[in-house]
Amino acid sequence: MSQATINGVMNGVNIDRLGGMIQIVQQNPTLATFHFRAKNKWITGGHNRSTIQSFYGAGQEFMRKNAFVLDSDEPPALLGTDQGPNPYESVLHALAAGLTTSLVYHATARGLHLESVESTLEGDLDVQGFLGLSDKVRRGYKEIRVHFAIKSDASAEQLDKLIRFSPVLDMVSNPVPVSIHIEKQ
Amino acid sequence: MSQATINGVMNGVNIDRLGGMIQIVQQNPTLATFHFRAKNKWITGGHNRSTIQSFYGAGQEFMRKNAFVLDSDEPPALLGTDQGPNPYESVLHALAAGLTTSLVYHATARGLHLESVESTLEGDLDVQGFLGLSDKVRRGYKEIRVHFAIKSDASAEQLDKLIRFSPVLDMVSNPVPVSIHIEKQ
Repeated sequence: MSQATINGVMNGVNIDRLGGMIQIVQQNPTLATFHFRAKNKWITGGHNRSTIQSFYGAGQEFMRKNAFVLDSDEPPALLGTDQGPNPYESVLHALAAGLTTSLVYHATARGLHLESVESTLEGDLDVQGFLGLSDKVRRGYKEIRVHFAIKSDASAEQLDKLIRFSPVLDMVSNPVPVSIHIEKQ
Repeated sequence: MSQATINGVMNGVNIDRLGGMIQIVQQNPTLATFHFRAKNKWITGGHNRSTIQSFYGAGQEFMRKNAFVLDSDEPPALLGTDQGPNPYESVLHALAAGLTTSLVYHATARGLHLESVESTLEGDLDVQGFLGLSDKVRRGYKEIRVHFAIKSDASAEQLDKLIRFSPVLDMVSNPVPVSIHIEKQ
C-alpha cells in the first residue's frame, strides 16, 4: 500500500524484477510456460482437502518447503459440517485474488500508485442444476457480480482495463478445456 | 469413508436429509436459489486476503459465526512472497473440491459406496497472455488435466458421469458472465 516508489518497489512489487521478467519472457517465450498443480483427498461427506506445493515455470521445477493446505466443505444447509468454504465460494476467492493481483501488477508496470483495493463478489447458483432436476438450469453460476472500491491516482477507466488482464477472469468468462481421467483402484 | 450405511449416513452424507433436500427443491424451485459471497482486501504486492462468511440459500440468509480467511500470494518466481497459493492454484483447488463433492453427493443419492477419492490436477498457463505480450496467447489456462484415483463399487463410467454434475466444472468449462463495477474512493 505504498504511495511512493521506495527502493524500486511500488505497490509492494519490485519494479526492476517485474521489468526484468517481461524482458526475459519477450526474449524467450518458452520461459512463459507455467504448470500449476493441486492434489485433493476426500475426507468424508462434503469435506475434502487440497494440498498445493509444487509448480513448473520459467524453465524449472519449484517445490515449496511446506504445502498450502485448503479444506473444502459444505455448510449444514447443504448437508456438510462447514470445515471450510465450499467449492463455489472458493471460485469467488480465486476470482477476487486474480483480479486484484492483475490490477496490482499491471498498475505497477505503468507507474500507477494504488493506496487500497477492496472487492466484494456475489455469484448466483440455482441448485436445481447440480441436483439434476432441470436441464434448463445450468449447474454453475448464472452470473457473478464484482464490486471494487479502490483508492488510486488512476481513473476508474484505467483501473477497469488493468483488472481485465486477469487470467482467472478469462478462465471464468471463457471456456477452459478440462480433461478428466478416472482410475479405479 | 464409510463402506456401509450406518444410521442413514452413507459416504458421510445423511441420506434422509439429501432426499429431503431434493424433494423440497422439486416442490418449491425458488428454494434452489443460492447467492455465495466473498470479500477481498489487497495487502501488498501479490498478497491479498479473502473473507467468506455469509450466504443466501433455501429462502434465508446464513451468517457463519466466524469467517473463513484465505490468503493469496504469488511465489517469489512471480515476484510475490508466497503467503498463500496463487489465484491459478486456487482455481484448481475449487475445481478439485467441486468435482469431489459432486461425486460424493451423487453417489450417495444412488446408493453407491465410496471408499477413497483422490485427485491430482494440473493447469497450463502461458504468462505471455497475462503480461499482455501476445494477443494470440490466452490469459487463462489453455487446459486443465484431472486424474482421479477412486476406490468404489461403482464402475469408472458411473463415476465419470457423477463427477460431471459439478457446478464448478460447468463454471470452468463454460462461460460465466462476470460484471465488474469500480468505485473510485
